[in-house]
Amino acid sequence: MTDANSKAADEGRLHALVEGWTKAIRARDVDAVMRHYTADTLSFDLAPPLQHRSDAIRNGLAAWFASFTGPVGYEVRDLAIEAGERVAFGHSLNRISGARTDGSHTDVWVRATLCFRKDGGAWKLAHEHVSVPFHMDGSFRAAVDLKP
Amino acid sequence: MTDANSKAADEGRLHALVEGWTKAIRARDVDAVMRHYTADTLSFDLAPPLQHRSDAIRNGLAAWFASFTGPVGYEVRDLAIEAGERVAFGHSLNRISGARTDGSHTDVWVRATLCFRKDGGAWKLAHEHVSVPFHMDGSFRAAVDLKP
Repeated sequence: MTDANSKAADEGRLHALVEGWTKAIRARDVDAVMRHYTADTLSFDLAPPLQHRSDAIRNGLAAWFASFTGPVGYEVRDLAIEAGERVAFGHSLNRISGARTDGSHTDVWVRATLCFRKDGGAWKLAHEHVSVPFHMDGSFRAAVDLKP
Repeated sequence: MTDANSKAADEGRLHALVEGWTKAIRARDVDAVMRHYTADTLSFDLAPPLQHRSDAIRNGLAAWFASFTGPVGYEVRDLAIEAGERVAFGHSLNRISGARTDGSHTDVWVRATLCFRKDGGAWKLAHEHVSVPFHMDGSFRAAVDLKP
């Protein structure tokens, strides 16, 4: 393959990986989500602490999924991926929605950065960063009300 | 060079790039910060809106720098970089501190993800994502009080 063909093929594989990861989140399937990660994935997530790895990611997912009464709504918008031969990154705006066990309804747009490494021929998610900004009016309120 | 030497050389260049970027932030030098970015850098930053590009990044930096009475304290901890031939990413925990014009004193740890592209032989920052998590106690308070 030419370099351009190889790059396009990798970007196709990475789009498929993100689609698989998204489907696993919607289905609240912890094992399926975890299969997309490397053994040492570092996660910067919506909830404290500052960073999570390994079992903390797994336990965080399980607790988060359990807080929804049904499937998690997870829409990925404007996913752009830049792929090298064995390192890649992507970013998107994602909408998370659904009914929660505490009676509330979540509907929030977040920013997602996904960083990938090719290990043994297969792409995996080596690092993820999901966040919302916060209001700079002195309130320090997380900006969970923004739209793209 | 061997692949391993080439990877190590690129990771050295990227560490130097982050150091230059950090020095420019400390010096509140907007032009010097901007020289580290590509023309189309996408920024997910601490302040709304969800995303910033180009002039919005420049204007945001100018306003932010003007809110400090002196140099910006900017410490980068645990910077890990994964470099491919023309795509790379890194992550770190950064401490931002300093006296503000409103009389307050900022001292906050943030998560930073930096994504790089090699353009015309030189590495540039193509995407950055800087955030804090928020408390999941229903308050939606940004977690500006966390320590690594």
